[in-house]
Amino acid sequence: MKSVRSIALAAAALAGAASAQHFQRLGTCPALGCVFPPDQADFLAGQYFDIRLEVHAPVNGSEANGLQPDEKFTFTIAKGDEEAKSVTEYFEIEDSKLERWNFTWFEDLFARDAKKPSLVNVTSKAYRRVALYEPGEYTATLSYNNGATTKATWLVRDLAEERRAKNIILFIGDGMTTNMITAARLIGHKSVNGKYQSKMQMDKFPVLGHQMTHSIDSFITDSANSASALYTGHKSSVNCLGVYADSSKSPFDDPKVETIAEIFHRLTGGLIGIVSTAYLADATPAALTAHTRDRSQYEHVIDTFLHGITNYTWTNWTGPDVLFGGGAENFYSPKLGGETYQDKDYYEEFSKAGYQLLHNRTSLLNAPNSDRALGVFTVSNMAKWLDRNVYRKNLNQSLSPTGDKTAALDQPGLKEMTLKAIDILHERSGDKGFFLMSEAASIDKMMHALDYDRALGELLELDDTINATVAKLKTLGCDKETLILVTADHGHGFDVMGSVDTAYLAAQDTQRKKRDAVGTYQNSGLSQYQTTGNLTLGGSNFPSNWDPRYTLFQGLMADPDRRENWSVHKDGPRKPAVEIVEDSEDFYANPKDGKGGLLLNGTLPVENDQGVHSLTDVPVFAMGPCQDLFGGVYNSIDIFFGMAECFGLGRGKPE
Amino acid sequence: MKSVRSIALAAAALAGAASAQHFQRLGTCPALGCVFPPDQADFLAGQYFDIRLEVHAPVNGSEANGLQPDEKFTFTIAKGDEEAKSVTEYFEIEDSKLERWNFTWFEDLFARDAKKPSLVNVTSKAYRRVALYEPGEYTATLSYNNGATTKATWLVRDLAEERRAKNIILFIGDGMTTNMITAARLIGHKSVNGKYQSKMQMDKFPVLGHQMTHSIDSFITDSANSASALYTGHKSSVNCLGVYADSSKSPFDDPKVETIAEIFHRLTGGLIGIVSTAYLADATPAALTAHTRDRSQYEHVIDTFLHGITNYTWTNWTGPDVLFGGGAENFYSPKLGGETYQDKDYYEEFSKAGYQLLHNRTSLLNAPNSDRALGVFTVSNMAKWLDRNVYRKNLNQSLSPTGDKTAALDQPGLKEMTLKAIDILHERSGDKGFFLMSEAASIDKMMHALDYDRALGELLELDDTINATVAKLKTLGCDKETLILVTADHGHGFDVMGSVDTAYLAAQDTQRKKRDAVGTYQNSGLSQYQTTGNLTLGGSNFPSNWDPRYTLFQGLMADPDRRENWSVHKDGPRKPAVEIVEDSEDFYANPKDGKGGLLLNGTLPVENDQGVHSLTDVPVFAMGPCQDLFGGVYNSIDIFFGMAECFGLGRGKPE
Repeated sequence: MKSVRSIALAAAALAGAASAQHFQRLGTCPALGCVFPPDQADFLAGQYFDIRLEVHAPVNGSEANGLQPDEKFTFTIAKGDEEAKSVTEYFEIEDSKLERWNFTWFEDLFARDAKKPSLVNVTSKAYRRVALYEPGEYTATLSYNNGATTKATWLVRDLAEERRAKNIILFIGDGMTTNMITAARLIGHKSVNGKYQSKMQMDKFPVLGHQMTHSIDSFITDSANSASALYTGHKSSVNCLGVYADSSKSPFDDPKVETIAEIFHRLTGGLIGIVSTAYLADATPAALTAHTRDRSQYEHVIDTFLHGITNYTWTNWTGPDVLFGGGAENFYSPKLGGETYQDKDYYEEFSKAGYQLLHNRTSLLNAPNSDRALGVFTVSNMAKWLDRNVYRKNLNQSLSPTGDKTAALDQPGLKEMTLKAIDILHERSGDKGFFLMSEAASIDKMMHALDYDRALGELLELDDTINATVAKLKTLGCDKETLILVTADHGHGFDVMGSVDTAYLAAQDTQRKKRDAVGTYQNSGLSQYQTTGNLTLGGSNFPSNWDPRYTLFQGLMADPDRRENWSVHKDGPRKPAVEIVEDSEDFYANPKDGKGGLLLNGTLPVENDQGVHSLTDVPVFAMGPCQDLFGGVYNSIDIFFGMAECFGLGRGKPE
Repeated sequence: MKSVRSIALAAAALAGAASAQHFQRLGTCPALGCVFPPDQADFLAGQYFDIRLEVHAPVNGSEANGLQPDEKFTFTIAKGDEEAKSVTEYFEIEDSKLERWNFTWFEDLFARDAKKPSLVNVTSKAYRRVALYEPGEYTATLSYNNGATTKATWLVRDLAEERRAKNIILFIGDGMTTNMITAARLIGHKSVNGKYQSKMQMDKFPVLGHQMTHSIDSFITDSANSASALYTGHKSSVNCLGVYADSSKSPFDDPKVETIAEIFHRLTGGLIGIVSTAYLADATPAALTAHTRDRSQYEHVIDTFLHGITNYTWTNWTGPDVLFGGGAENFYSPKLGGETYQDKDYYEEFSKAGYQLLHNRTSLLNAPNSDRALGVFTVSNMAKWLDRNVYRKNLNQSLSPTGDKTAALDQPGLKEMTLKAIDILHERSGDKGFFLMSEAASIDKMMHALDYDRALGELLELDDTINATVAKLKTLGCDKETLILVTADHGHGFDVMGSVDTAYLAAQDTQRKKRDAVGTYQNSGLSQYQTTGNLTLGGSNFPSNWDPRYTLFQGLMADPDRRENWSVHKDGPRKPAVEIVEDSEDFYANPKDGKGGLLLNGTLPVENDQGVHSLTDVPVFAMGPCQDLFGGVYNSIDIFFGMAECFGLGRGKPE
């Protein structure tokens, strides 16, 4: 079996010219014949997916060979050592019609600067909603150009039909790394003589793992393709939600893969809950139901929550029982300024489908647990913990979720949303159980903005939410039958290297003297965020003082130009860089940001006004049934397979 | 029990003025009475330790109270709710004599700039080599200044006298973080469509943990106090080896704590091996036998390897059976330029004690396994994997371990040293077993130098060493009885954020255009370090090409001024910053370094010519007996307690 993969590997290694770096002709397709799902794809037995085949004919550039795109390519599938069958025979489906298109790309940055794109003509076919049921290795072979082949080895993982968990709660700290957890612990928990007097809830989880987030065609991932990997077991490309990216013009015809929410709902009738502090059309919630290679199709995303996929026959989907977050602009009517799918009022659409509508914390807390609920609490991303709890005047913006331009002052936090989601899902699911995804989205958003304080506040709120969830499950008596996973989708290159004497920093008048304010090693001293006595918020662990004289010497490695004063940004989320000339895409340090601080030149291309994601493996914390599936180091897709195994979702034959 | 700790906590919180940040009067002593071991100290039952008591009388500064230092302080110990006894009664020892000294410190950076130190007069006593045998909580109380008290709660952990592992091998990747492991995997292992075709050996370990590295009196640690925490179960201060730091002038009278090597050797007669790619007097090897608050006492450190502690009665120590590494300058005679303890020739000293002397890779590989061995292979730190294997001309320096000023061309790597150490320890230990510490020291040293390629090369060499160790243990038939731990002592704020087109970078002529060479997200593309076919070195996983056009966009967050071209430094370890004026302690980007790259201003105080450590929790990988003790998230000191439990080293009464 191994040898098949080796052959495919060798073939890939030979295709030199196409393995450009910054730009690629088409990710996952180093040869001129492209198979999706590509080589190395793993499947859950019975998981729905689409097949997309492409043959590329480069017209110019280093790969040009003078050929027309092949119209007579063939595609076969063989299980193990069995005889190969044509795709139509294998799946007992009709052949599909030949499609044609073309696209351009740049071979490198020099070609881009010289405005010399490479043109590629394409022939293609797609086969929709098929499934493989028998575990084992398959060889999928595309034959084209009179004898060339592209082989893909597919693996259907071993069956696991026995259900071991009634419920799964998946917490995603977007962009959260071990480094950030360490920093959040430092500011949120007291230590005495090097020993913390309390632990993060995550620290108490019995099983720890690391997952590798590498995209399918680049080593850095975004939140769309990483969420897709976690939810579908299939790696993909940046910006993809639940599809492999093909080269066609439409963002709605790419080959789909079924998500954990779709499979669980289809096979068991179990209920789905989706909670996020982002706008709800954002990648991490969207990837549970949307299938598009363009994550910015927000209006479409909102429709898929309710109706699923409508342009092709797909899975059986009847909507989540809980959908809580921000992003009201994709729900309320265009008459109020909304941007919605087919210009409909999606509050009305959800209401017609039996959802109660919730627009603030008060109504959330008072909502009956007996009805499905749509909770949309603000335009755009939800307010940050730091602004909801400490710098409340920053809530005075025209972000009301009704679209009436008032302020959204009464917003719930992740904890209130998650606890209510559990109440509703628990009450409504009966014996069927539920799958809940709860996302602390603004850890990522605030790290992008280099707003470390707000990011760590969001992380502490996530930990507080997990803590409250553990207690809630015990109260409901379902802690033993509920698997809790806490993980991230990718990292940011963040760490803390010492402390900053902000009084000294502000008092110096040269750049080089300002750097003396930094204390490293023994001069880092102790955290000053916990020195003013009792914590401010009941039993939860948050800093009692966000604005001490000695702050953290912290930051990212990949930045725009910026000025760092390492102090809390009291006027709302940070904006580190601005354009001097409007629409120039040329960003400089924001003169209004980081006053008195150290001016630092960025390392990112100058069109960046914020930080970017990083490579690092991210942690996984597991507690509950099947927890042992999540220890050690593994691929991001193994989270999907672990959850599917725990829910017993493999199927050896069609139902 | 809990209440005792709470009281101590409250007392600590009240001592406001002394909780300065950059500088502290004395770490772990926020009040004017100081107890070492301090509050929150944990002990292995039967572990030797010293007690140091100090009473401080600040003469000036914010704490000055006009008092003379108390000469009549008393110190009592009470187990649980039992009656407190004086220290002399409790341990049945003589009272010790009163000592006096004074010291100065700065309250903050303004005081330092103004040259206004605070003076403190001190009275003190010390009690040497005591031990607590009964598990449980103890209250140690220092009474001074007519009614003031400083209380310390000590915990003797539960007994675990049953031995579960014959051998323990502790690998320390100095400065190694999860982020670095991810980066090393990216350059050393092939991935196809987002799936690695081979894994790191670390990735295959069944149990994963995170340890918190927080120092006792600052949140950033150095390699001395972090190694002490791992080896003794006691947190300490920066620069401390196996002691708590007192305020006296001598670096050799600080209160000691017994190390895992000392306890294991004393109680079981088991053998000790010490292997490092650093100079052997460096902190990580040194902390196994040295006890000083000043890690730079190199000559002293080398003597402790052989003779243990000689200025006080201490543990029973007869030297390690294996000691391999660099740092010949602290061994060969001062006549040849050596810097040695009491000007002795330490090759001669070790030889007289029965050690075979090894000075190159050839003699190492051919050495008999029947004799104890001292292997010193170079002056200073050992050559890096990248220089030994790829850029060999950089070995042409006058670093011969004999002191004869020739080049040390035939140096072993961590793998050869570790495998030979295991052979010797296995053959010589019989039923007694062994403890081996093997350190990949230059992960840290090369990260300090911002030489990411060399650092990752060292990390891959560590992984290769672990891989070979697992195989070696199987061959020797002792894999089932040997616990292998892999961890780090602290991190550096490192990550990878994308790729760099080095051809494009070099071709641009402005700083801002150069930044366009950076590719993020999808433009990071795939690793180009594995594209030239077969790996260069047998079955081991290292890059086949260290100098591809598309390199990693990687780095640290805390830096000196430097110029980054993100290319391999072919002329030997990087030197990113230099002084323009000699001895000015004012460092600028090295004009000879990073040619064609991007000039970046640093964030560290300008006297820094390299990067610094960071806060992040570091990973722990465990395999073998007791592996389950090392899952989840815990304190660095728990590594000591886990190893001690696995060796069954707790003792309920004196032997």
